[in-house]
Amino acid sequence: MSPWTAAQPGDPASAVDTPALVLDLDAFERNLQRMAQALHGTGVRLRAHAKSHKCPEIARRQVALGAVGICCQKVSEAAVFVAAGIDDVLVTNEVVGDAKLQRLMDLARRARIGVLADHPAQVRALAAAARAAAATLDVYVEVNVGANRCGVPPGADAVELARLVAASAPLRFAGLQCYHGPAQHLRPPAQRAAAIADAVAAARTTRAAIEACGIPVPHVTGGGTGSFQHERDSGVFDEIQAGSYVFMDRDYADNERAAGAPAFEHALFVRTTVMSRPSATRAMVDAGLKASSVDSGLPVVWQRPELRYLKAADEHGTLDTPAGDTPALGDALLLVPGHCDPTVNLYDELVCVRGGTVEALWPIAARGALL
Amino acid sequence: MSPWTAAQPGDPASAVDTPALVLDLDAFERNLQRMAQALHGTGVRLRAHAKSHKCPEIARRQVALGAVGICCQKVSEAAVFVAAGIDDVLVTNEVVGDAKLQRLMDLARRARIGVLADHPAQVRALAAAARAAAATLDVYVEVNVGANRCGVPPGADAVELARLVAASAPLRFAGLQCYHGPAQHLRPPAQRAAAIADAVAAARTTRAAIEACGIPVPHVTGGGTGSFQHERDSGVFDEIQAGSYVFMDRDYADNERAAGAPAFEHALFVRTTVMSRPSATRAMVDAGLKASSVDSGLPVVWQRPELRYLKAADEHGTLDTPAGDTPALGDALLLVPGHCDPTVNLYDELVCVRGGTVEALWPIAARGALL
Repeated sequence: MSPWTAAQPGDPASAVDTPALVLDLDAFERNLQRMAQALHGTGVRLRAHAKSHKCPEIARRQVALGAVGICCQKVSEAAVFVAAGIDDVLVTNEVVGDAKLQRLMDLARRARIGVLADHPAQVRALAAAARAAAATLDVYVEVNVGANRCGVPPGADAVELARLVAASAPLRFAGLQCYHGPAQHLRPPAQRAAAIADAVAAARTTRAAIEACGIPVPHVTGGGTGSFQHERDSGVFDEIQAGSYVFMDRDYADNERAAGAPAFEHALFVRTTVMSRPSATRAMVDAGLKASSVDSGLPVVWQRPELRYLKAADEHGTLDTPAGDTPALGDALLLVPGHCDPTVNLYDELVCVRGGTVEALWPIAARGALL
Repeated sequence: MSPWTAAQPGDPASAVDTPALVLDLDAFERNLQRMAQALHGTGVRLRAHAKSHKCPEIARRQVALGAVGICCQKVSEAAVFVAAGIDDVLVTNEVVGDAKLQRLMDLARRARIGVLADHPAQVRALAAAARAAAATLDVYVEVNVGANRCGVPPGADAVELARLVAASAPLRFAGLQCYHGPAQHLRPPAQRAAAIADAVAAARTTRAAIEACGIPVPHVTGGGTGSFQHERDSGVFDEIQAGSYVFMDRDYADNERAAGAPAFEHALFVRTTVMSRPSATRAMVDAGLKASSVDSGLPVVWQRPELRYLKAADEHGTLDTPAGDTPALGDALLLVPGHCDPTVNLYDELVCVRGGTVEALWPIAARGALL
């Protein structure tokens, strides 16, 4: 990692070295409030997705505003958050392999831990590991509600797996994971609504089929920043897993906003400097693909629509500019990343700014936690 | 970062937790030897590009085999390598801003440091910072030889900038940076040869024009893994900046190999586990886009051409498989990353294996060094 940080608390925001990952604290706090308000009084709880931020300081603020806990994708991420005092963590993923299962059980002795399953062999391995460790944990059956990623099909297969979990003490059958990832990024609101209507129907019939066997289904969990109001209003889901809403990114902003959906703001930026001005229509910035992930498309330049980020190399970004000298060599710009999650994963800290001053550096403690 | 590592020295390679970045030491060492042999006796030296590996253990082995030193893209990367004992480091980039210039001068008092310039304002700022710090350093004029990224045009503009550097003590005019990035990835050898022939012509005329002013041009440096034999044989370049040859990646392997070019081998792999097997033709692995960068396309499954890596989500990879149970839940696979540089930047260590055993963990000490 860099032997020094991009800034220190108290520095002027204009002096933050680049590239740096900057969090606009006012916008961030408004985003937290908007999500809390959107769920207030609905009986639907927030389990904030921490894979987006990997930052205990943020998780603590989400819990303080009512989140039941967090979810994350990896056992090693969960370990970072449990160590930071988050006591309810769902690993929204299947976990396979003895080493990982032992780590998971270590966590389950210290916090409420959940995990997903979509195959009987996983359930048997989880139960054996839990028994050996004298631990218990929540197991959710993952249902494929349209993402075609992991998950058993809705209906009979899910019932069978739920029965197995319920019969596999000390595991607790905690309910259904019904997340539809691709639906988050459908641009027209009607398309997102239709995809989630299908997911809700699959969740509803699966839940009913399990309950018909006399097995309670404590939770149906899922939903993301792009769709959560549909899961919230479904009467089936009781938990939302949104993560990106704290930051927003270019990809989510490319969604057309549904009527009544909260207007989350861009709060996360890559600060960058023009380090070469080789022609009147080309400016080179010091933020390339190691500074802003390009898997969901290129970043855009914040509030400078006349500047177009054309191309990312490892450490160079090429901007197309109107003919002239603006931006000048040495000018700083803010980029809105294409995709917040993998961009955050490139940095060791968030430079938190408010009112033109660096207020804090927040460690991205689970950065690189892949195991 | 993860609170634990994927393996320990002495572990069987088959027990490495996933996802992990695995280096096949035998293949890696053969790649180092092949490059050393390709340059042996030519009078052209290697300045290995450390942005690819960010790993002092690798830089030391490159220097031991004859590399004059390394190059890298960032001042903070240079600091990591100087701290690790590499005493000749060229930052192959323009460096702008007082904070960065001061850091660069700190390094220039401890090691031989070089940097690029493509604008008079950069040269003036470098000279002022060097004088203030009582430091000296090598400054190379970057020439745009076809990449259309940074760099002054060949010819008169380059001459003018070289004059300014040469007149700006304590800066040393060290020569020309003439790197053609896009040429590295042209698939047909004839296209790479033609692009580099143009770059060589631009470098030759620019060098001659500067020398005609009585200014010696100590070095012409550039070239990469895809093209270096052309720069080597040009009679103009005396230094090669290849980096990816130590690892290779899917993108470089997609190049058709030129006659006589060294057959660099894949030495870098992302080890991954099948953690869900939701259908007879779909296997989900635990390595997504936070485990293998997708900017240059998707990874491929090593020596398993029947398995196709279709799609990367943050923490999931979707494999298309022939109908059946292979690979099975829990099976480990090796992926060849699409692009080695940003993939390495996602990990904290290389798990080095030989003969089925983990021989060492090498810290990727400059991972995330963006400043």
